Amino acid sequence: MSGRLYIVGLGPGDTRWLTPEAQEALALAHDIIGYASYVERVPKRLGQTRLASDNRVEIDRAREALERASAGRVVAVVSGGDPGVFAMASAVFEAVDAGAPHWRDLDIRVMPGVSAMQAAAARFGAPLGHDFCAISLSDNLKPWSLIEKRLEHAALGDFVIALYNPASRARPTQILDAFSLLRKLLPGERFVGLAKSIGRETEEVILSTLDRVDVAQIDMSTLVLIGSSGTKAIPRNNARGWIYTARSAL
Amino acid sequence: MSGRLYIVGLGPGDTRWLTPEAQEALALAHDIIGYASYVERVPKRLGQTRLASDNRVEIDRAREALERASAGRVVAVVSGGDPGVFAMASAVFEAVDAGAPHWRDLDIRVMPGVSAMQAAAARFGAPLGHDFCAISLSDNLKPWSLIEKRLEHAALGDFVIALYNPASRARPTQILDAFSLLRKLLPGERFVGLAKSIGRETEEVILSTLDRVDVAQIDMSTLVLIGSSGTKAIPRNNARGWIYTARSAL
Repeated sequence: MSGRLYIVGLGPGDTRWLTPEAQEALALAHDIIGYASYVERVPKRLGQTRLASDNRVEIDRAREALERASAGRVVAVVSGGDPGVFAMASAVFEAVDAGAPHWRDLDIRVMPGVSAMQAAAARFGAPLGHDFCAISLSDNLKPWSLIEKRLEHAALGDFVIALYNPASRARPTQILDAFSLLRKLLPGERFVGLAKSIGRETEEVILSTLDRVDVAQIDMSTLVLIGSSGTKAIPRNNARGWIYTARSAL
Repeated sequence: MSGRLYIVGLGPGDTRWLTPEAQEALALAHDIIGYASYVERVPKRLGQTRLASDNRVEIDRAREALERASAGRVVAVVSGGDPGVFAMASAVFEAVDAGAPHWRDLDIRVMPGVSAMQAAAARFGAPLGHDFCAISLSDNLKPWSLIEKRLEHAALGDFVIALYNPASRARPTQILDAFSLLRKLLPGERFVGLAKSIGRETEEVILSTLDRVDVAQIDMSTLVLIGSSGTKAIPRNNARGWIYTARSAL
Protein backbone atom coordinates (compact mmCIF):
# COMPACT_ATOMS: atom_id res chain seq x y z
CA MET A 1 0.00 0.00 0.00
CA SER A 2 1.75 3.15 -1.20
CA GLY A 3 -0.95 5.70 -0.41
CA ARG A 4 -0.36 8.39 2.14
CA LEU A 5 -2.60 10.74 4.06
CA TYR A 6 -1.33 14.18 4.98
CA ILE A 7 -3.40 16.21 7.43
CA VAL A 8 -2.22 19.69 6.57
CA GLY A 9 -2.53 22.96 8.48
CA LEU A 10 -2.81 25.98 6.21
CA GLY A 11 -2.47 28.49 9.05
CA PRO A 12 -4.95 31.35 9.38
CA GLY A 13 -5.67 33.55 6.37
CA ASP A 14 -3.11 34.02 3.66
CA THR A 15 0.04 32.12 2.71
CA ARG A 16 2.47 34.00 4.98
CA TRP A 17 1.97 31.31 7.62
CA LEU A 18 2.03 28.27 5.33
CA THR A 19 5.00 26.15 6.40
CA PRO A 20 7.46 24.60 3.92
CA GLU A 21 6.31 21.17 5.12
CA ALA A 22 2.70 21.99 4.27
CA GLN A 23 3.66 23.51 0.91
CA GLU A 24 5.48 20.33 -0.01
CA ALA A 25 2.57 18.10 0.99
CA LEU A 26 0.15 20.18 -1.09
CA ALA A 27 2.48 19.88 -4.09
CA LEU A 28 2.75 16.09 -3.76
CA ALA A 29 -0.92 15.34 -3.21
CA HIS A 30 -3.12 13.75 -5.86
CA ASP A 31 -6.24 14.78 -3.95
CA ILE A 32 -6.98 17.88 -1.87
CA ILE A 33 -9.91 17.34 0.50
CA GLY A 34 -11.49 19.79 2.91
CA TYR A 35 -14.07 22.36 3.81
CA ALA A 36 -14.68 24.50 0.71
CA SER A 37 -13.16 27.73 2.00
CA TYR A 38 -9.90 25.94 2.90
CA VAL A 39 -9.68 24.04 -0.39
CA GLU A 40 -10.04 27.41 -2.17
CA ARG A 41 -6.88 28.62 -0.46
CA VAL A 42 -4.75 25.83 -2.00
CA PRO A 43 -3.14 26.88 -5.31
CA LYS A 44 -4.57 24.88 -8.22
CA ARG A 45 -2.35 22.28 -9.89
CA LEU A 46 -2.93 20.38 -13.11
CA GLY A 47 -4.06 16.82 -12.51
CA GLN A 48 -4.89 17.36 -8.87
CA THR A 49 -8.40 16.44 -7.70
CA ARG A 50 -10.12 18.91 -5.37
CA LEU A 51 -12.98 17.77 -3.15
CA ALA A 52 -14.66 20.58 -1.29
CA SER A 53 -17.37 19.81 1.22
CA ASP A 54 -19.61 21.43 3.78
CA ASN A 55 -18.29 22.23 7.23
CA ARG A 56 -20.47 19.76 9.12
CA VAL A 57 -19.45 16.52 7.44
CA GLU A 58 -15.99 16.07 8.94
CA ILE A 59 -16.31 12.32 9.41
CA ASP A 60 -17.56 11.68 5.85
CA ARG A 61 -14.69 13.78 4.56
CA ALA A 62 -12.21 11.84 6.72
CA ARG A 63 -13.55 8.49 5.43
CA GLU A 64 -13.33 9.65 1.83
CA ALA A 65 -9.69 10.65 2.41
CA LEU A 66 -8.88 7.31 4.07
CA GLU A 67 -10.51 5.35 1.21
CA ARG A 68 -8.49 7.24 -1.36
CA ALA A 69 -5.21 6.82 0.54
CA SER A 70 -6.00 3.08 0.88
CA ALA A 71 -6.36 2.93 -2.90
CA GLY A 72 -2.78 4.16 -3.24
CA ARG A 73 -3.35 7.87 -3.66
CA VAL A 74 -1.50 10.68 -1.89
CA VAL A 75 -4.23 12.64 -0.15
CA ALA A 76 -4.03 15.98 1.64
CA VAL A 77 -6.82 16.80 4.06
CA VAL A 78 -6.60 20.55 4.64
CA SER A 79 -7.61 22.63 7.67
CA GLY A 80 -7.25 26.30 8.44
CA GLY A 81 -4.91 27.05 11.34
CA ASP A 82 -3.48 23.91 12.94
CA PRO A 83 -5.30 20.68 11.95
CA GLY A 84 -4.56 19.33 15.44
CA VAL A 85 -6.44 22.12 17.26
CA PHE A 86 -10.25 21.85 17.00
CA ALA A 87 -9.91 20.69 13.41
CA MET A 88 -9.62 17.77 11.00
CA ALA A 89 -6.87 15.66 12.62
CA SER A 90 -9.18 14.51 15.40
CA ALA A 91 -11.93 13.66 12.88
CA VAL A 92 -9.53 11.59 10.77
CA PHE A 93 -8.33 9.53 13.74
CA GLU A 94 -11.91 9.11 14.93
CA ALA A 95 -12.73 7.67 11.50
CA VAL A 96 -9.69 5.37 11.66
CA ASP A 97 -10.68 4.20 15.13
CA ALA A 98 -14.18 3.23 13.99
CA GLY A 99 -13.25 2.19 10.46
CA ALA A 100 -11.68 -0.56 8.41
CA PRO A 101 -8.79 -2.36 10.16
CA HIS A 102 -6.46 -1.84 7.19
CA TRP A 103 -6.72 1.94 7.63
CA ARG A 104 -4.41 1.50 10.63
CA ASP A 105 -1.64 0.41 8.28
CA LEU A 106 -1.78 3.71 6.40
CA ASP A 107 1.01 6.27 6.48
CA ILE A 108 -0.81 9.20 8.12
CA ARG A 109 1.15 12.37 8.87
CA VAL A 110 -0.14 15.41 10.71
CA MET A 111 1.50 18.67 9.61
CA PRO A 112 1.04 21.38 12.21
CA GLY A 113 0.27 24.97 11.30
CA VAL A 114 0.05 28.32 13.03
CA SER A 115 -3.27 28.27 14.90
CA ALA A 116 -5.83 31.09 14.92
CA MET A 117 -5.12 31.56 18.62
CA GLN A 118 -1.42 32.19 18.02
CA ALA A 119 -1.97 34.55 15.10
CA ALA A 120 -4.54 36.46 17.14
CA ALA A 121 -2.19 36.68 20.13
CA ALA A 122 0.58 38.03 17.91
CA ARG A 123 -1.66 40.92 16.86
CA PHE A 124 -2.27 41.94 20.48
CA GLY A 125 1.31 41.62 21.73
CA ALA A 126 1.96 38.58 23.91
CA PRO A 127 -1.24 37.63 25.79
CA LEU A 128 -0.34 33.90 25.62
CA GLY A 129 3.02 34.57 27.26
CA HIS A 130 2.09 32.48 30.23
CA ASP A 131 -0.15 29.50 31.21
CA PHE A 132 -3.27 29.36 29.05
CA CYS A 133 -6.29 27.25 28.05
CA ALA A 134 -8.07 26.82 24.75
CA ILE A 135 -11.79 26.02 24.90
CA SER A 136 -14.29 25.52 22.08
CA LEU A 137 -17.72 26.96 22.86
CA SER A 138 -19.42 24.76 20.29
CA ASP A 139 -21.93 22.45 21.93
CA ASN A 140 -22.64 20.45 18.79
CA LEU A 141 -20.63 17.54 20.14
CA LYS A 142 -20.40 18.15 23.89
CA PRO A 143 -22.93 19.23 26.52
CA TRP A 144 -22.97 22.88 27.57
CA SER A 145 -22.47 21.77 31.19
CA LEU A 146 -19.00 20.48 30.29
CA ILE A 147 -18.16 23.80 28.65
CA GLU A 148 -19.30 25.59 31.81
CA LYS A 149 -17.15 23.33 33.96
CA ARG A 150 -14.09 24.06 31.84
CA LEU A 151 -14.72 27.80 31.82
CA GLU A 152 -14.99 27.74 35.62
CA HIS A 153 -11.75 25.85 36.08
CA ALA A 154 -9.97 28.02 33.54
CA ALA A 155 -11.07 31.12 35.47
CA LEU A 156 -10.32 29.70 38.93
CA GLY A 157 -6.91 28.51 37.73
CA ASP A 158 -6.14 32.05 36.57
CA PHE A 159 -5.35 30.92 33.05
CA VAL A 160 -5.35 33.13 29.99
CA ILE A 161 -8.32 31.77 28.01
CA ALA A 162 -8.68 31.43 24.25
CA LEU A 163 -12.24 30.77 23.09
CA TYR A 164 -12.83 29.04 19.76
CA ASN A 165 -16.23 28.91 18.03
CA PRO A 166 -17.72 31.68 20.20
CA ALA A 167 -20.92 31.86 18.14
CA SER A 168 -22.70 29.93 15.48
CA ARG A 169 -25.80 30.45 13.39
CA ALA A 170 -27.49 27.56 15.14
CA ARG A 171 -26.76 28.85 18.63
CA PRO A 172 -25.70 32.50 18.77
CA THR A 173 -25.81 32.86 22.54
CA GLN A 174 -22.86 30.71 23.61
CA ILE A 175 -20.59 33.69 24.07
CA LEU A 176 -23.20 35.61 26.10
CA ASP A 177 -23.54 32.66 28.46
CA ALA A 178 -19.77 32.26 28.67
CA PHE A 179 -19.20 35.92 29.53
CA SER A 180 -22.00 35.81 32.16
CA LEU A 181 -20.30 32.87 33.81
CA LEU A 182 -16.84 34.44 33.66
CA ARG A 183 -18.05 37.78 35.06
CA LYS A 184 -19.10 35.98 38.25
CA LEU A 185 -15.56 34.66 38.72
CA LEU A 186 -13.28 37.33 37.30
CA PRO A 187 -12.92 41.09 37.75
CA GLY A 188 -14.63 43.19 35.09
CA GLU A 189 -11.39 44.90 34.08
CA ARG A 190 -9.89 41.68 32.71
CA PHE A 191 -8.73 42.26 29.16
CA VAL A 192 -10.76 40.77 26.33
CA GLY A 193 -9.32 40.71 22.84
CA LEU A 194 -11.44 40.02 19.78
CA ALA A 195 -9.53 38.93 16.69
CA LYS A 196 -11.69 38.72 13.57
CA SER A 197 -10.71 37.11 10.25
CA ILE A 198 -7.02 37.22 11.16
CA GLY A 199 -4.71 37.12 8.15
CA ARG A 200 -7.52 37.99 5.76
CA GLU A 201 -8.26 41.34 4.13
CA THR A 202 -11.15 41.98 6.48
CA GLU A 203 -8.98 41.44 9.58
CA GLU A 204 -10.10 43.39 12.61
CA VAL A 205 -8.65 43.52 16.11
CA ILE A 206 -10.57 44.93 19.08
CA LEU A 207 -9.25 45.31 22.62
CA SER A 208 -11.82 45.56 25.39
CA THR A 209 -12.51 44.27 28.90
CA LEU A 210 -14.87 41.71 30.39
CA ASP A 211 -17.36 44.34 31.56
CA ARG A 212 -17.24 46.46 28.41
CA VAL A 213 -16.98 43.94 25.58
CA ASP A 214 -19.63 44.26 22.87
CA VAL A 215 -20.80 40.75 21.98
CA ALA A 216 -22.44 42.08 18.81
CA GLN A 217 -18.89 42.31 17.41
CA ILE A 218 -18.34 38.57 17.85
CA ASP A 219 -19.09 36.22 14.96
CA MET A 220 -18.00 32.79 13.71
CA SER A 221 -14.69 34.18 12.44
CA THR A 222 -13.76 35.65 15.84
CA LEU A 223 -11.14 34.28 18.21
CA VAL A 224 -11.68 35.58 21.75
CA LEU A 225 -8.76 36.00 24.17
CA ILE A 226 -9.35 36.70 27.87
CA GLY A 227 -6.44 37.82 30.03
CA SER A 228 -5.32 36.37 33.36
CA SER A 229 -4.39 38.37 36.49
CA GLY A 230 -0.92 38.69 34.96
CA THR A 231 -2.06 40.24 31.67
CA LYS A 232 -1.05 43.90 31.47
CA ALA A 233 -1.66 46.70 29.00
CA ILE A 234 0.89 49.04 27.45
CA PRO A 235 -0.91 52.18 26.26
CA ARG A 236 0.48 53.96 23.20
CA ASN A 237 -0.03 57.44 21.84
CA ASN A 238 -0.82 56.94 18.19
CA ALA A 239 -1.67 53.28 17.91
CA ARG A 240 -3.63 50.51 19.58
CA GLY A 241 -1.90 49.52 22.81
CA TRP A 242 -0.36 46.14 23.41
CA ILE A 243 -1.25 43.53 26.00
CA TYR A 244 1.12 40.90 27.34
CA THR A 245 1.04 38.30 30.07
CA ALA A 246 4.01 38.68 32.36
CA ARG A 247 6.29 35.69 32.75
CA SER A 248 6.59 36.49 36.42
CA ALA A 249 3.96 35.94 39.12
CA LEU A 250 6.15 36.50 42.18
CA MET B 1 12.30 56.51 13.66
CA SER B 2 12.60 53.85 10.95
CA GLY B 3 13.74 50.94 13.09
CA ARG B 4 11.60 47.87 13.45
CA LEU B 5 11.55 44.98 15.87
CA TYR B 6 10.44 41.58 14.67
CA ILE B 7 9.83 38.91 17.28
CA VAL B 8 10.22 35.80 15.20
CA GLY B 9 9.17 32.20 15.85
CA LEU B 10 11.50 29.67 14.24
CA GLY B 11 9.24 26.70 15.00
CA PRO B 12 10.68 23.60 16.67
CA GLY B 13 13.76 21.95 15.20
CA ASP B 14 14.58 22.30 11.54
CA THR B 15 13.35 24.65 8.83
CA ARG B 16 10.32 22.62 7.70
CA TRP B 17 8.18 24.69 10.06
CA LEU B 18 9.72 28.11 9.36
CA THR B 19 6.92 30.28 7.92
CA PRO B 20 7.39 32.53 4.87
CA GLU B 21 6.71 35.53 7.14
CA ALA B 22 9.53 34.50 9.48
CA GLN B 23 11.89 33.79 6.56
CA GLU B 24 11.30 37.25 5.18
CA ALA B 25 11.90 38.92 8.56
CA LEU B 26 15.17 37.05 9.01
CA ALA B 27 16.28 38.15 5.53
CA LEU B 28 15.46 41.82 6.21
CA ALA B 29 17.02 42.07 9.66
CA HIS B 30 20.27 43.92 10.34
CA ASP B 31 20.58 42.22 13.72
CA ILE B 32 19.62 38.71 14.85
CA ILE B 33 19.30 38.48 18.62
CA GLY B 34 18.47 35.44 20.74
CA TYR B 35 19.46 32.50 22.84
CA ALA B 36 22.56 30.98 21.26
CA SER B 37 20.98 27.72 20.08
CA TYR B 38 18.21 29.63 18.26
CA VAL B 39 20.58 32.15 16.65
CA GLU B 40 22.59 29.18 15.33
CA ARG B 41 19.52 27.99 13.44
CA VAL B 42 19.29 31.22 11.42
CA PRO B 43 21.19 31.00 8.09
CA LYS B 44 24.18 33.38 8.09
CA ARG B 45 24.03 36.46 5.86
CA LEU B 46 26.80 38.88 4.96
CA GLY B 47 26.56 42.13 6.90
CA GLN B 48 24.11 40.79 9.45
CA THR B 49 25.05 41.09 13.12
CA ARG B 50 24.36 38.06 15.32
CA LEU B 51 24.06 38.46 19.07
CA ALA B 52 23.78 35.16 20.90
CA SER B 53 23.18 35.15 24.63
CA ASP B 54 22.56 32.82 27.53
CA ASN B 55 19.06 31.50 28.18
CA ARG B 56 18.52 33.33 31.45
CA VAL B 57 18.97 36.93 30.33
CA GLU B 58 15.74 37.43 28.40
CA ILE B 59 15.16 40.97 29.66
CA ASP B 60 18.70 42.15 28.88
CA ARG B 61 18.32 40.66 25.42
CA ALA B 62 14.97 42.39 24.95
CA ARG B 63 16.44 45.77 26.00
CA GLU B 64 19.37 45.35 23.63
CA ALA B 65 16.94 44.64 20.79
CA LEU B 66 14.78 47.67 21.67
CA GLU B 67 17.83 49.97 21.83
CA ARG B 68 18.97 48.84 18.41
CA ALA B 69 15.52 49.22 16.86
CA SER B 70 15.30 52.71 18.42
CA ALA B 71 18.57 53.56 16.70
CA GLY B 72 16.93 52.79 13.35
CA ARG B 73 17.99 49.20 12.86
CA VAL B 74 15.79 46.31 11.75
CA VAL B 75 16.12 43.78 14.56
CA ALA B 76 14.88 40.18 14.71
CA VAL B 77 14.59 38.63 18.15
CA VAL B 78 14.38 34.88 17.55
CA SER B 79 12.69 32.16 19.62
CA GLY B 80 12.25 28.46 19.04
CA GLY B 81 8.62 27.42 18.55
CA ASP B 82 6.18 30.32 18.85
CA PRO B 83 7.66 33.48 20.43
CA GLY B 84 4.26 34.19 22.00
CA VAL B 85 4.13 30.91 23.96
CA PHE B 86 6.47 30.84 26.99
CA ALA B 87 9.10 32.70 24.97
CA MET B 88 10.60 36.05 24.00
CA ALA B 89 7.49 38.08 23.05
CA SER B 90 6.43 38.41 26.66
CA ALA B 91 9.96 39.45 27.70
CA VAL B 92 10.11 42.14 25.01
CA PHE B 93 6.78 43.69 26.04
CA GLU B 94 7.81 43.50 29.69
CA ALA B 95 10.93 45.48 28.78
CA VAL B 96 8.83 48.00 26.82
CA ASP B 97 6.44 48.37 29.76
CA ALA B 98 9.27 49.17 32.19
CA GLY B 99 11.52 50.96 29.73
CA ALA B 100 12.02 54.21 27.85
CA PRO B 101 8.73 55.91 26.79
CA HIS B 102 9.91 56.24 23.17
CA TRP B 103 10.08 52.44 22.91
CA ARG B 104 6.26 52.51 22.74
CA ASP B 105 6.50 54.32 19.40
CA LEU B 106 8.44 51.46 17.84
CA ASP B 107 7.06 49.24 15.11
CA ILE B 108 7.06 45.87 16.91
CA ARG B 109 5.65 42.82 15.12
CA VAL B 110 5.21 39.36 16.58
CA MET B 111 5.51 36.58 14.01
CA PRO B 112 3.94 33.38 15.26
CA GLY B 113 5.49 29.98 14.70
CA VAL B 114 4.54 26.35 15.17
CA SER B 115 4.89 25.69 18.90
CA ALA B 116 6.62 22.68 20.45
CA MET B 117 3.25 21.57 21.78
CA GLN B 118 1.70 21.45 18.31
CA ALA B 119 4.63 19.67 16.71
CA ALA B 120 4.63 17.15 19.55
CA ALA B 121 0.88 16.59 19.22
CA ALA B 122 1.25 15.98 15.48
CA ARG B 123 3.67 13.13 16.18
CA PHE B 124 1.18 11.37 18.44
CA GLY B 125 -1.90 11.82 16.26
CA ALA B 126 -4.36 14.43 17.52
CA PRO B 127 -4.17 14.66 21.32
CA LEU B 128 -4.93 18.42 21.24
CA GLY B 129 -8.11 17.79 19.24
CA HIS B 130 -10.23 19.17 22.02
CA ASP B 131 -10.05 21.64 24.95
CA PHE B 132 -6.54 21.88 26.37
CA CYS B 133 -4.23 23.82 28.70
CA ALA B 134 -0.55 24.70 28.46
CA ILE B 135 1.35 25.06 31.73
CA SER B 136 5.02 25.84 32.33
CA LEU B 137 6.48 23.92 35.27
CA SER B 138 9.32 26.39 35.70
CA ASP B 139 9.18 28.06 39.08
CA ASN B 140 11.93 30.55 38.35
CA LEU B 141 9.37 33.34 38.01
CA LYS B 142 6.25 32.03 39.76
CA PRO B 143 5.66 30.21 43.04
CA TRP B 144 5.22 26.45 42.94
CA SER B 145 1.86 26.86 44.73
CA LEU B 146 0.48 28.66 41.64
CA ILE B 147 1.67 25.84 39.41
CA GLU B 148 -0.07 23.36 41.71
CA LYS B 149 -3.28 25.38 41.58
CA ARG B 150 -3.21 25.40 37.78
CA LEU B 151 -2.45 21.68 37.55
CA GLU B 152 -5.39 20.98 39.84
CA HIS B 153 -7.83 23.06 37.81
CA ALA B 154 -6.52 21.61 34.56
CA ALA B 155 -7.16 18.11 35.89
CA LEU B 156 -10.54 18.91 37.45
CA GLY B 157 -11.64 20.64 34.24
CA ASP B 158 -10.77 17.49 32.28
CA PHE B 159 -8.45 19.36 29.94
CA VAL B 160 -5.74 17.80 27.85
CA ILE B 161 -2.58 19.20 29.46
CA ALA B 162 0.68 20.23 27.78
CA LEU B 163 3.57 20.73 30.18
CA TYR B 164 6.43 23.01 29.19
CA ASN B 165 9.77 23.12 31.06
CA PRO B 166 9.14 19.85 32.91
CA ALA B 167 12.64 19.73 34.36
CA SER B 168 15.66 21.96 34.73
CA ARG B 169 19.17 21.51 36.03
CA ALA B 170 18.41 23.79 38.95
CA ARG B 171 15.25 21.95 39.98
CA PRO B 172 14.94 18.48 38.49
CA THR B 173 11.95 17.39 40.56
CA GLN B 174 9.16 19.61 39.15
CA ILE B 175 7.82 16.83 36.98
CA LEU B 176 7.84 14.29 39.84
CA ASP B 177 5.80 16.68 41.97
CA ALA B 178 3.45 17.42 39.09
CA PHE B 179 2.80 13.73 38.37
CA SER B 180 2.23 13.03 42.10
CA LEU B 181 -0.40 15.76 42.20
CA LEU B 182 -2.08 14.62 38.97
CA ARG B 183 -2.17 10.96 40.09
CA LYS B 184 -4.36 11.99 43.02
CA LEU B 185 -6.90 13.55 40.65
CA LEU B 186 -6.76 11.46 37.49
CA PRO B 187 -6.95 7.73 36.70
CA GLY B 188 -3.58 6.02 36.25
CA GLU B 189 -4.42 4.90 32.72
CA ARG B 190 -4.50 8.47 31.38
CA PHE B 191 -2.20 8.71 28.38
CA VAL B 192 1.11 10.51 28.80
CA GLY B 193 3.14 11.39 25.74
CA LEU B 194 6.78 12.43 25.92
CA ALA B 195 8.08 14.31 22.90
CA LYS B 196 11.84 14.88 23.02
CA SER B 197 13.82 17.21 20.74
CA ILE B 198 11.00 17.31 18.18
CA GLY B 199 12.15 18.23 14.69
CA ARG B 200 15.79 17.55 15.51
CA GLU B 201 17.88 14.51 14.58
CA THR B 202 17.66 13.15 18.09
CA GLU B 203 13.85 13.31 18.11
CA GLU B 204 12.21 10.69 20.31
CA VAL B 205 8.54 10.03 20.98
CA ILE B 206 7.35 7.87 23.89
CA LEU B 207 3.74 6.95 24.65
CA SER B 208 2.98 5.89 28.22
CA THR B 209 0.38 6.39 30.95
CA LEU B 210 0.24 8.36 34.17
CA ASP B 211 0.96 5.31 36.33
CA ARG B 212 3.70 3.88 34.10
CA VAL B 213 5.60 6.93 32.82
CA ASP B 214 9.35 6.85 33.46
CA VAL B 215 10.37 10.32 34.63
CA ALA B 216 14.03 9.48 33.99
CA GLN B 217 13.19 9.90 30.29
CA ILE B 218 12.14 13.52 30.80
CA ASP B 219 14.67 16.28 30.30
CA MET B 220 14.72 19.98 29.41
CA SER B 221 14.01 19.22 25.75
CA THR B 222 10.85 17.23 26.55
CA LEU B 223 7.30 18.38 25.96
CA VAL B 224 4.85 16.35 28.07
CA LEU B 225 1.25 15.78 26.93
CA ILE B 226 -1.37 14.32 29.28
CA GLY B 227 -4.66 13.11 27.85
CA SER B 228 -8.16 13.97 29.04
CA SER B 229 -11.02 11.52 29.58
CA GLY B 230 -11.73 11.86 25.85
CA THR B 231 -8.23 10.87 24.70
CA LYS B 232 -8.26 7.45 23.06
CA ALA B 233 -5.63 5.14 21.66
CA ILE B 234 -5.57 3.42 18.28
CA PRO B 235 -3.24 0.41 18.50
CA ARG B 236 -1.35 -0.58 15.35
CA ASN B 237 0.38 -3.78 14.34
CA ASN B 238 3.77 -2.67 13.11
CA ALA B 239 4.09 0.88 14.34
CA ARG B 240 3.57 3.04 17.40
CA GLY B 241 -0.15 3.57 17.96
CA TRP B 242 -1.86 6.91 17.66
CA ILE B 243 -3.73 8.86 20.32
CA TYR B 244 -6.44 11.41 19.61
CA THR B 245 -8.90 13.40 21.67
CA ALA B 246 -12.41 12.89 20.42
CA ARG B 247 -14.35 15.97 19.36
CA SER B 248 -17.42 14.48 20.95
CA ALA B 249 -18.18 14.24 24.67
CA LEU B 250 -21.85 13.27 24.43
